[in-house]
Amino acid sequence: MNYEDVMKLALERGFYFPSCEIYADAQAGFWEYGPSGVSLKNKFLELWRRELIRRDGMMEIDGSQIMSKSVFEASGHLGNFADPIIKCTKCKSTFRADRTISEISKIEIPESADLVEFDNAILQNNIKCPKCKGDFENAKKFNMMFKVGIGPEEEEAYLRPETCQSIFVDFPRLFKTMRGKLPLGIAQIGKSFRNEISPRQSLLRLREFYQAEIEVFCNPTKLDEMERFSEVQNTIIRIQIDTKAVSMTCKEAVESKTIPNKFVAYYLGILAEFYEKTGIDVTKSRFRKLGDKEKAFYAQVAFDFEV
Amino acid sequence: MNYEDVMKLALERGFYFPSCEIYADAQAGFWEYGPSGVSLKNKFLELWRRELIRRDGMMEIDGSQIMSKSVFEASGHLGNFADPIIKCTKCKSTFRADRTISEISKIEIPESADLVEFDNAILQNNIKCPKCKGDFENAKKFNMMFKVGIGPEEEEAYLRPETCQSIFVDFPRLFKTMRGKLPLGIAQIGKSFRNEISPRQSLLRLREFYQAEIEVFCNPTKLDEMERFSEVQNTIIRIQIDTKAVSMTCKEAVESKTIPNKFVAYYLGILAEFYEKTGIDVTKSRFRKLGDKEKAFYAQVAFDFEV
Repeated sequence: MNYEDVMKLALERGFYFPSCEIYADAQAGFWEYGPSGVSLKNKFLELWRRELIRRDGMMEIDGSQIMSKSVFEASGHLGNFADPIIKCTKCKSTFRADRTISEISKIEIPESADLVEFDNAILQNNIKCPKCKGDFENAKKFNMMFKVGIGPEEEEAYLRPETCQSIFVDFPRLFKTMRGKLPLGIAQIGKSFRNEISPRQSLLRLREFYQAEIEVFCNPTKLDEMERFSEVQNTIIRIQIDTKAVSMTCKEAVESKTIPNKFVAYYLGILAEFYEKTGIDVTKSRFRKLGDKEKAFYAQVAFDFEV
Repeated sequence: MNYEDVMKLALERGFYFPSCEIYADAQAGFWEYGPSGVSLKNKFLELWRRELIRRDGMMEIDGSQIMSKSVFEASGHLGNFADPIIKCTKCKSTFRADRTISEISKIEIPESADLVEFDNAILQNNIKCPKCKGDFENAKKFNMMFKVGIGPEEEEAYLRPETCQSIFVDFPRLFKTMRGKLPLGIAQIGKSFRNEISPRQSLLRLREFYQAEIEVFCNPTKLDEMERFSEVQNTIIRIQIDTKAVSMTCKEAVESKTIPNKFVAYYLGILAEFYEKTGIDVTKSRFRKLGDKEKAFYAQVAFDFEV
């Protein structure tokens, strides 16, 4: 089924539909789940709880969505969680700088580049507004967090852009009060919020969306001391490195150093078993090892699950 | 167990705890559920789904929390969802006008009164700031909705102050696509947000909180044509009118006109059965019929469940 067919079915059968659609000022990037959507989502979450949270003895929390300014100063989101944008001086439309430049002139500038690089590219390639051919103002950074004012003094706080914030902020209390032992998985299903410049394709790029997130805290010197690894050592996972997807057992993946240690291999193993139970055709899936430029600066290794 | 004991247990066992507590700018009125809290909440919700949603064939939706300005213009929240506040000219502290006046001078002014009534009461009774004895500025209205700016132009939108907004806004599509027939229950469990002046007592007055809400749409001329009423006609409910709580069956409540029709009695009946199954000591509970001044202006009849 292509995207249009999925959308048609979703709207006709009440799986999901745009929020506030009866009003003219309905904003893009907000969607509501109808009865069938809620039912499907709940089934997915029950499986997630059974196959990951309960199986691995993780803790599940449910944190507040509005969090203090300090949290996002510490996480770097206040400074860096921003997209480069350009605004037309004539029609006042706003665009993502990197995407617009790449679409018009095929020049690829990373979104994290200095703003002056975008301005230079626009000038040198005579890039104009795609809507009205007007000139652009200088590029700006647009922070994607939604700000809210708390109390009559409107103290600065933000809607979290990721569910992981609550997990990290709550870790000290949870570790102490719940008598945690490493490795310790903390999970959360909840809403996150990002003020996207161009939300699109219904549930694929939203301004308000659910995340089902797990952070496993571990001792980095003990990544191969993982008794539970035996549970998944014969589980087959598909791993894509560069362009080829290969099937192998978790044990083979560790022995061939495709996966650097038993700790990572164990979690890829239980994830593979989970995804199979969701009904995904796993023969069409793979864990893709991210390249050095793709993964976050703090990550030693990273895999994306792709179908 | 008194409030302090409950709080102590909740903190020690990780049921719930303040959000962002590791930071100095943690805002009041935001809480996180720890593992035991999530587990308890999920059990409650499963019971709610089984005993009310599935039993009555209701539809469950899950709507966006950020909604367009028009929604709150139409609902009246933009104009009227406000508390009267007073600010000290000296120490700049802000207080709820009605509460501060009543605490200091025992004069009761309804929160919906004209602002000039608060100013007059303050002047005539020489009411000063409880913190520093300073004078107050004139009373103001403080809208309790959290505003968020959408996109680079910061178009006005709000975090919903009640979950019912999504239910009402989605009703036309749901009624059509799901082939609804009245009476039709639409349910939602989700977060709501209110910028309270003085959040307090942990989960009792929050700025961000869950609501499990049901709106049943019906034909007002057919409130006694309710076949399903027979399921609950012998269910015992406790109803408090004025100061006395009386136990009676749903049938007796309708016949004695304590409850005006079978429609309302049916829903109080299934709610009574639900609350009993949650483990609440129902002999200490009652449905209290609200007086004319307590209930919303649009309500013909209203009951609060109290324990």
